[in-house]
Amino acid sequence: MSDFQLNERLAADTFFVTDLALCSVLLMNDARYPWLILVPRVGDMTEIHHLSSEQQHLLMEESAKAGQLLESLFKPTSINVAALGNVVSQLHVHHIARFSSDPAWPGPVWGHSSAVPYTKTEIATVLSVLQPGFAE
Amino acid sequence: MSDFQLNERLAADTFFVTDLALCSVLLMNDARYPWLILVPRVGDMTEIHHLSSEQQHLLMEESAKAGQLLESLFKPTSINVAALGNVVSQLHVHHIARFSSDPAWPGPVWGHSSAVPYTKTEIATVLSVLQPGFAE
Repeated sequence: MSDFQLNERLAADTFFVTDLALCSVLLMNDARYPWLILVPRVGDMTEIHHLSSEQQHLLMEESAKAGQLLESLFKPTSINVAALGNVVSQLHVHHIARFSSDPAWPGPVWGHSSAVPYTKTEIATVLSVLQPGFAE
Repeated sequence: MSDFQLNERLAADTFFVTDLALCSVLLMNDARYPWLILVPRVGDMTEIHHLSSEQQHLLMEESAKAGQLLESLFKPTSINVAALGNVVSQLHVHHIARFSSDPAWPGPVWGHSSAVPYTKTEIATVLSVLQPGFAE
């Protein structure tokens, strides 16, 4: 996992949550959606199918963990899981808790409208439930 | 895998490509994007993390195969892989070959504009390259 450096835009738009075996877990700074981004710490990676078989299986396990956490903590209507990479090519997988009452529903969140940043109190609260969840 | 029945809207919007061990592979009837949809043949399934661990690993392997095929056949700029489920809740995973010249680039394709159906000649051609690819 040498030569990995987190893309600057991903770093600027998110808060760090935790490091799992393969992925760094980030929280998108948009208070409207509980939105985790998993970034495999593998240099110059752009597509899931370019990962080794072992890395693919780890990604699936860590992705499922993210989905389970979002579901248990936020009780969403559905969870959007997506690796797009059209704007930021570094491989990253979105996990977004969606609600039938959210601003973009039922459309995709990407490009819908500008993010609403968390307040300091809000982000402390969200991280205080997410971080122990990943540690379990 | 009993009690599985393909959602009517997914069936109406796609052509059948092939059945893999876990998933049915469908091709979205939109000639603007090479667009495969993998549907795990598991009844009442809505989220990836609700699949068993074994099914999750199979899904990852079949998803990677779909990504590899789209990449080798169509040489896209990137591949979008996404399980959304906001409109059709039955678990299905999009694999879309995206090009920097395509109509929705760099935004998401969902909700962007109406599909452009394949002609009979076009669909025969596309299926004739996809189906042997999955059989390899």
